[in-house]
Amino acid sequence: MSISLYAASVPVFKQMLLALSDVLRKAEAHALDRKIDPAVLLQSRMFPDMFPLVRQVQIACDFAKSVPARVAGIEVATYEDNEQSFTELQQRISKTVALLNAMTVEQMDGGDGKEIVLRPGTPKEKKLSGQAYVLAYGLPQFFFHVTTAYNLLRHNGVEIGKKDFMGAY
Amino acid sequence: MSISLYAASVPVFKQMLLALSDVLRKAEAHALDRKIDPAVLLQSRMFPDMFPLVRQVQIACDFAKSVPARVAGIEVATYEDNEQSFTELQQRISKTVALLNAMTVEQMDGGDGKEIVLRPGTPKEKKLSGQAYVLAYGLPQFFFHVTTAYNLLRHNGVEIGKKDFMGAY
Repeated sequence: MSISLYAASVPVFKQMLLALSDVLRKAEAHALDRKIDPAVLLQSRMFPDMFPLVRQVQIACDFAKSVPARVAGIEVATYEDNEQSFTELQQRISKTVALLNAMTVEQMDGGDGKEIVLRPGTPKEKKLSGQAYVLAYGLPQFFFHVTTAYNLLRHNGVEIGKKDFMGAY
Repeated sequence: MSISLYAASVPVFKQMLLALSDVLRKAEAHALDRKIDPAVLLQSRMFPDMFPLVRQVQIACDFAKSVPARVAGIEVATYEDNEQSFTELQQRISKTVALLNAMTVEQMDGGDGKEIVLRPGTPKEKKLSGQAYVLAYGLPQFFFHVTTAYNLLRHNGVEIGKKDFMGAY
């Protein structure tokens, strides 16, 4: 037996983004409770040259929308990257989950052997099969950013746990 | 076309553990260069009630060894969890990569529909298909711990980047 590239990506992204949405809701409530300016959490970083929370969430959504779309060979939705509040981040997550809900197994069928070119035309250009693109590139990148968003909030004292990170499985 | 549960787990775990090994080597060199007691990094935490680096690496290895073994229905190797140095963590990673190298596609074939029981006999018992166990539980758990290990070191000033996290893909 075997699984589809769809199963290895779309439901995983959706599970983790819905969990991230709940985590962000708890973070927002935490800021409100303690009279912390939400921007303090949204702009918090693990280290000065790392991206702040808002960008971590944006990039997690970017991988979730682009990985399945590129395998399917459909246009990747473009976002303006102008979110500045928890509400706007929730909207970005909702938009992304809606895109994932619209994807079908059939659209991604046959994507395994498709060639995906990363950073085309640059010295770092890299060609990957659809399978390698999802498993060896897309999943690690996506998980990096959802985990870093969680860690940033945990580090800032928001009361969340592994259960919140995992979501519904 | 479709992919195997083996492809969705074993090579992914191996890629990320080899990358983690390099990240830990850089962390050890960083400590040596700056005359930092290695234990400071090994015992560092993102928040007082989170696990320290040494435990994050141990747990990442635990998921990498147990997820494929449980799907294959073979015995899960037991580790003593007594690592206290970078050298010992490297040994744990090497042992785990050797176990992954010994796994075959055939061993995990047919695991998709197999029922895996998490936390058996407890109020939190949960039954998952082999496919859900790998994709919705095993991968998120594994990535959580490798990313947190990376973030802990990044937060402590070790000069590593996303490229180090990703490894060879």
